Amino acid sequence: MADNQKKLVEQITSMDEDFAKWYTDIVKKADLIDYSSVKGCMIIRPYGYAIWENIQKILDARFKETGVENVYMPLFIPESLLTKEKDHVEGFAPEVAWITYGGSEKLAERLCVRPTSETLFCEHYANIIKSYRDLPKVYNQWCSVVRWEKTTRPFLRSREFLWQEGHTMHRTAKEAEERTVQMLNLYADFFEKDLAIPVVKGQKTDKEKFAGAKATYTVEALMHDGKALQGGTSHNFGDDFAKAFGIQFLDSDNTLKTPHQTSWGVSTRIIGGIIMTHGDDSGLVLPPAVAPIQVIVIPVQQHKAGVIEAATAIVDTLKENGIRVKMDDSEQSPGWKFSEYEMKGVPLRIEIGPRDIAENKCVIVRRDNREKSFVSVDELVPAVKDGLEKLTAALYEKALKNREQRTYEAEDMEQMKEISQTKSGYIKAMWCGSLECEMKLKEECDVTSRCIPFGVKPTGNRCVCCGREAKKLVYWGKAY
Amino acid sequence: MADNQKKLVEQITSMDEDFAKWYTDIVKKADLIDYSSVKGCMIIRPYGYAIWENIQKILDARFKETGVENVYMPLFIPESLLTKEKDHVEGFAPEVAWITYGGSEKLAERLCVRPTSETLFCEHYANIIKSYRDLPKVYNQWCSVVRWEKTTRPFLRSREFLWQEGHTMHRTAKEAEERTVQMLNLYADFFEKDLAIPVVKGQKTDKEKFAGAKATYTVEALMHDGKALQGGTSHNFGDDFAKAFGIQFLDSDNTLKTPHQTSWGVSTRIIGGIIMTHGDDSGLVLPPAVAPIQVIVIPVQQHKAGVIEAATAIVDTLKENGIRVKMDDSEQSPGWKFSEYEMKGVPLRIEIGPRDIAENKCVIVRRDNREKSFVSVDELVPAVKDGLEKLTAALYEKALKNREQRTYEAEDMEQMKEISQTKSGYIKAMWCGSLECEMKLKEECDVTSRCIPFGVKPTGNRCVCCGREAKKLVYWGKAY
Repeated sequence: MADNQKKLVEQITSMDEDFAKWYTDIVKKADLIDYSSVKGCMIIRPYGYAIWENIQKILDARFKETGVENVYMPLFIPESLLTKEKDHVEGFAPEVAWITYGGSEKLAERLCVRPTSETLFCEHYANIIKSYRDLPKVYNQWCSVVRWEKTTRPFLRSREFLWQEGHTMHRTAKEAEERTVQMLNLYADFFEKDLAIPVVKGQKTDKEKFAGAKATYTVEALMHDGKALQGGTSHNFGDDFAKAFGIQFLDSDNTLKTPHQTSWGVSTRIIGGIIMTHGDDSGLVLPPAVAPIQVIVIPVQQHKAGVIEAATAIVDTLKENGIRVKMDDSEQSPGWKFSEYEMKGVPLRIEIGPRDIAENKCVIVRRDNREKSFVSVDELVPAVKDGLEKLTAALYEKALKNREQRTYEAEDMEQMKEISQTKSGYIKAMWCGSLECEMKLKEECDVTSRCIPFGVKPTGNRCVCCGREAKKLVYWGKAY
Repeated sequence: MADNQKKLVEQITSMDEDFAKWYTDIVKKADLIDYSSVKGCMIIRPYGYAIWENIQKILDARFKETGVENVYMPLFIPESLLTKEKDHVEGFAPEVAWITYGGSEKLAERLCVRPTSETLFCEHYANIIKSYRDLPKVYNQWCSVVRWEKTTRPFLRSREFLWQEGHTMHRTAKEAEERTVQMLNLYADFFEKDLAIPVVKGQKTDKEKFAGAKATYTVEALMHDGKALQGGTSHNFGDDFAKAFGIQFLDSDNTLKTPHQTSWGVSTRIIGGIIMTHGDDSGLVLPPAVAPIQVIVIPVQQHKAGVIEAATAIVDTLKENGIRVKMDDSEQSPGWKFSEYEMKGVPLRIEIGPRDIAENKCVIVRRDNREKSFVSVDELVPAVKDGLEKLTAALYEKALKNREQRTYEAEDMEQMKEISQTKSGYIKAMWCGSLECEMKLKEECDVTSRCIPFGVKPTGNRCVCCGREAKKLVYWGKAY
């Protein structure tokens, strides 16, 4: 049993030894993805896809509570449409996939596979928005998008990925800004409550913002290794796109006005973020809200009379109470099963054997800290619910502590260089706002601006780079 | 009020006058789709997409009950992979869209946008199936596919459409055949119970079967105008693909064997089928199971004291009971609203005004036959549930009657020609099984074989075309 367990665990590289290898080991060994002959794309396997389905279910319900309606736009964008908004096409044209043939016929105009759908939504909105009564429009779509990346990694950066993209139109600038912030807050809440991932909310610098946006807000998470991950973004477009696409509405004062626009999205990157925030050397650790299996029941000495029956009764009880539960009564040893479901990050394991049955109890083991508790079968449901909640809270605390320990401050370039060379994490430093300094920090310290955080006190009043007056505090770091 | 109502209805072409125009009027006026500059593709608007979401929810739950797991495969297929199975590539290569550039770089190998994903699933299965313990694999994906059609019509035939494609691998031929039939029956049940669309279950002739399949089973529905619509198909591939892709497993008898494969799918075509089966000259008529709004509540004389409150109470009560309900308290007249929600096919309308309130009742109007009933507010929930059930049953009966009235029999070519020229519907006729006769029927009578129905008695023993011995009864017809 111990041997078996060891064997399985040995297959994963330790995270301290090689974090990148540990990551790719996990996505393969936990059956999240497989590779195919389609370079830079991935196959999302049932266990990985079930995590995405849970993410979708939670977010979709939350979106709809705020008035979002789902639609589906074409997969393709004609070249002439993509190029309508100048900044946008500059940002995306270098990385799109081009369709040039339909069957054996050469197309008169190239079509790209959507890298994002602002242009399609704008064209549609130009058709359907005529009056202030048609506003707001708060649409979203769940789909896949394609960006022709050079280097790819499962979930984090792939040529095709799944996401949702919300696109909204509003009567006033104020309303658009409110929607931008509302969606940012919704994402932040989802990350923190459901995924147990603490985030920093803030604004992207002009250099890092979305191609064509007036302002990009972001939720940034810090991974176990101290690198940052952009979790979700919410953009305020102002009326630039609307003007480029000729979208106008007749307001109640009988004048023609241009509406204000937002877009916001999260993608399957989130799954990469979950792995790198919570995982450990035994494999995945999944937050219960999105875990495909929340509780795995493992019968011990399952050939003995009454064991399978008792385990089945536990499964039935938990199912009735809305818990996602599975029993593994395969021929593998209990030790093998323990390792297997640790690898898969199942939050709670229940073991039940003849001795437990005699005492009307079972054992609950938490995935994160392996804490065991002996629970009376009559107390099972509250014990499991409590265990799932405590695990979520513990994951959040652990991730928050990691972030706090990995958040540094720099006052000048010397400190900046020293920290960026010796530590891995966020570096808080003041910034004058110039692109020049941002470029220099990238070049000399290999850090990018993650965001200008909301509600965080300035650490000084001089730019970390040029020493001139600085009002903006920036979180700098290396990012996935 | 009557004027308003007339005006709105006048915008739709009558179905008897021009069925095709009636159809396109409805998809636009009921806000199901919009066109874009992407030729041959459609925008599925919120009301149309909500129907698709309901279809997905029902089918996905039913799939999962039978052990189906969802996955996501890449959007692209390298040319060399598409061409691995001979029949398959012959069927699909002429109608795929080809990616030739990624950004500004020409690709070494062309990629097509998936027209269907057998090849990708096979490549993956070759990776993950090693032992009989790995079988069966019962995977499905919800995605969009692309086929470069010349002529397109919203929902019925478009260059991109949404669908689900199930792909399974089995240890034995028998098990694969059972899964093929199981999924066909699942589709038939869904069509009949949830969509109120009667179907004929049967097998496709070799000419009409899926490119690469050994056998294709189908559920065929008859539209209001007498044309047939293929509703869903389930294919048994035998082991041809598996052989082409080198998929083998070690069986319990320690010998290497080739697994047997199925695939099955339904698409957004279904929405076209719903429109053309149940719609009328006032617009859509939606079966309650997939209607985004099942009940529309319209307050009458809504400015009078207590009307909005009473209408809101009705909405709340129905919502609590799991009914999808909406109130329209906009400034439009009740007559305008009546027309609008008839156009949108909302199954039940509830009217409530001051006089109703005084009598503690409301009026329920059925969309299909406009039957009015006066219901005590205390009896509301059972009355609504009953109304929805009766409407579903009535839609089914009406569609079945249409099919029965439009099902003809032919014994020889003279009868076949006469019926196909003067009637529109199914023609039951015996067939010898030769491709020659099938082609001749297409050429001379402009009919195609819809299916060889299961469990329907032969109408004779001579081929309708050549007069030779015939054992197969075929439903012939014109199809969308």
